[in-house]
Amino acid sequence: MTNKQQAVLPHVRGYKCTLCHQEFPYDAEMLTCPDCGEKGILDILYDYDEIRKNVSRESLAQDHTNSMWRYKAFLPLQDRDFSPFLRVGWTPLYESLRLGDELGLKKLYIKDDGLNPTASLKDRASAVAVAKAIELGYDTISCSSTGNAASSCAGNAARMGLKSVIFVPERAPEGKLAQMLIFGARVVSVIGNYKDTFDLSKMAIEKYGWFNRNAGINPVMTEGKKTVSLEIAEQLNWQPTDWVVLSVGDGCTVGGVYLGFYDLFQMGMIDRIPKILGVQSTGCSPFVDAGCECKPLVVTEENTLADSISVGVPRNVVKAQRAVAESGGQWVAVPDEEILAAMSLLGRTEGIYGEPAGVTGTAGIKAALAQGIIKPDETVTVIVTGNGLKDTKNALAAAGSSVKSKPNLEALEASGILD
Amino acid sequence: MTNKQQAVLPHVRGYKCTLCHQEFPYDAEMLTCPDCGEKGILDILYDYDEIRKNVSRESLAQDHTNSMWRYKAFLPLQDRDFSPFLRVGWTPLYESLRLGDELGLKKLYIKDDGLNPTASLKDRASAVAVAKAIELGYDTISCSSTGNAASSCAGNAARMGLKSVIFVPERAPEGKLAQMLIFGARVVSVIGNYKDTFDLSKMAIEKYGWFNRNAGINPVMTEGKKTVSLEIAEQLNWQPTDWVVLSVGDGCTVGGVYLGFYDLFQMGMIDRIPKILGVQSTGCSPFVDAGCECKPLVVTEENTLADSISVGVPRNVVKAQRAVAESGGQWVAVPDEEILAAMSLLGRTEGIYGEPAGVTGTAGIKAALAQGIIKPDETVTVIVTGNGLKDTKNALAAAGSSVKSKPNLEALEASGILD
Repeated sequence: MTNKQQAVLPHVRGYKCTLCHQEFPYDAEMLTCPDCGEKGILDILYDYDEIRKNVSRESLAQDHTNSMWRYKAFLPLQDRDFSPFLRVGWTPLYESLRLGDELGLKKLYIKDDGLNPTASLKDRASAVAVAKAIELGYDTISCSSTGNAASSCAGNAARMGLKSVIFVPERAPEGKLAQMLIFGARVVSVIGNYKDTFDLSKMAIEKYGWFNRNAGINPVMTEGKKTVSLEIAEQLNWQPTDWVVLSVGDGCTVGGVYLGFYDLFQMGMIDRIPKILGVQSTGCSPFVDAGCECKPLVVTEENTLADSISVGVPRNVVKAQRAVAESGGQWVAVPDEEILAAMSLLGRTEGIYGEPAGVTGTAGIKAALAQGIIKPDETVTVIVTGNGLKDTKNALAAAGSSVKSKPNLEALEASGILD
Repeated sequence: MTNKQQAVLPHVRGYKCTLCHQEFPYDAEMLTCPDCGEKGILDILYDYDEIRKNVSRESLAQDHTNSMWRYKAFLPLQDRDFSPFLRVGWTPLYESLRLGDELGLKKLYIKDDGLNPTASLKDRASAVAVAKAIELGYDTISCSSTGNAASSCAGNAARMGLKSVIFVPERAPEGKLAQMLIFGARVVSVIGNYKDTFDLSKMAIEKYGWFNRNAGINPVMTEGKKTVSLEIAEQLNWQPTDWVVLSVGDGCTVGGVYLGFYDLFQMGMIDRIPKILGVQSTGCSPFVDAGCECKPLVVTEENTLADSISVGVPRNVVKAQRAVAESGGQWVAVPDEEILAAMSLLGRTEGIYGEPAGVTGTAGIKAALAQGIIKPDETVTVIVTGNGLKDTKNALAAAGSSVKSKPNLEALEASGILD
């Protein structure tokens, strides 16, 4: 399936295994550590002097590129014209107008990544995966997922003319299936649980030689996600807030968020890495339970309505724990009721509609303030990772309800809605 | 509710009634023609020499404003800092990579307005309405709608701290209700049909002095929508395609699309106005039935699954008919099956997910090619007016289905999905 003609990437020094810390030369076909196996997730090492040849604060200030591809110099990809891709990234960073005050924060910014083309931050990873698959000559990309990763994989692949094969457990919700199917993905509904689904995807990917978009396996995925941090930093004029807050499920996204700030710090483009607050639901909180001491994770029940972060056995453990520990950050858990309340709070105060996992960061700020983790005079950026339109059922549970009225003014006044 | 201190708008010459053609001085509180009443929808007249003082092709080329507000000089608003608003507009214009070929077109562009903050083109109108309400000192904005207009009104109002009161008929779909309610709108579910709902909203708006966002009543709404054309023209380097294609329901959007090109033509920024193809469902096609001769509209049944254009009694008749007639365009109707097929076609070929009304334009291109209205060597821009995430039910009907497989390779191969 691949032409084996790998591009030379002068800015990529190689790989380092997150478990055994061995370094390896860069090989795009090598997805995990040959010694540690599938759990040996790799970091990509960069030559920042090489990156510096192609990008700077000044060059970006002149750059009208209206997507994550303004940061292509930071990505493990061959240079190419990325304008045909879906317009992923360069999502708005809003200064809070009311939510910060309600929470009792000095300054709050909200990064709305639900405005990506398939409506989640996962588009950033899928875009890089699709680019890498094209670079290597694949014609098919595959992943195993029930949600945003799968639909973003399908959408970004469809745009660039790649086929996609998506493995979902048979309990996958209809709304998420619809999106993938509209994008023309071949969707395999696996009779079994999530592990069965993942295992079948792995066997099929190996047998048929498809490109592997599973985020725990392929290190380019965190690289794509790091662009959200590059954007936050640039949108804040290279003065990031004290904290950056987001929900955590598998660990890939929070790992990427740290890597973006890490790269900028190494480049001398920011003076410090913000503290990262990782937020989980109390219904599924293996990272919070393991704490800042990075204890080994314990397999956890998946008992939260925030489906995108309902991950009892996360795969990107090292990247996630490192993100919080090395940034001087913290972990907090919030109950599902607080997540639903945050959906409504964010919508009412700022006009931003997030799915449950998308607003879990917002709920986490409240908890972190109450616990004294975030101080009221600190500045905070919260990332909304996915759009509320993905989960109408929980939105209705969060939203309250309309008031019925007969069609006359007396009835309207009697309804109480004007009080 | 209003401070009556209207801003002086040097670039606005006044109003002209679309029915009786009388001209009136500009008064933001005057929404319809005093002689013709509610049906006397107004055009806003501009002094293009004044606009020219503030904007040009060259000034725009230097402008990094990443939203519709890059065109604020073209809008009937006082100048202000629009950066606190939701980031409406400057949505991607994709060059088609495969759909154009499949349809047999020389060149096709796709404007994805489903990537607006509340996921539809209606955000453009709501943003201007909210800005005007703020300018006039209102604290509450109101409209009557079942869909995208209402949720965009609620979202844009919430962001800027305005209250919103939304009137919906009791049959309004839950998914659309959820979005408005999350934005903190007071939602009145009116026991009655759409006319009862509209009438109650009108009475309440008058009695309580709220700002009126009903698109048929308030002429700033088409002005907001025209920004989609300004973007298309700029994104095509001021060389618009031969045709611009979109779905038509109430007529406000297509009216605005024409006005945007009209303004640019008056300004000398484009050399010609593209032909506009207005597309409706055969299940509800009053404009198509009236044809290019602009015959009076006949009340029509509302029998289409494309709910956003299911309008049997459109309000913006003159603006819509003028858009098609004066641009040298055409009207076509497509059956609902073709609309569903277009959902899938657009997703599969381009990775773009539109709601039924959002892809009706795409279905219309096919019909117009078959009828010889659009020639294969002509260039076309199609506008996707709303996001498919708004309508999972129809997406599932359009999308086909997944294939079940037991978790082993033999079963996967037997499933046929790999053929």
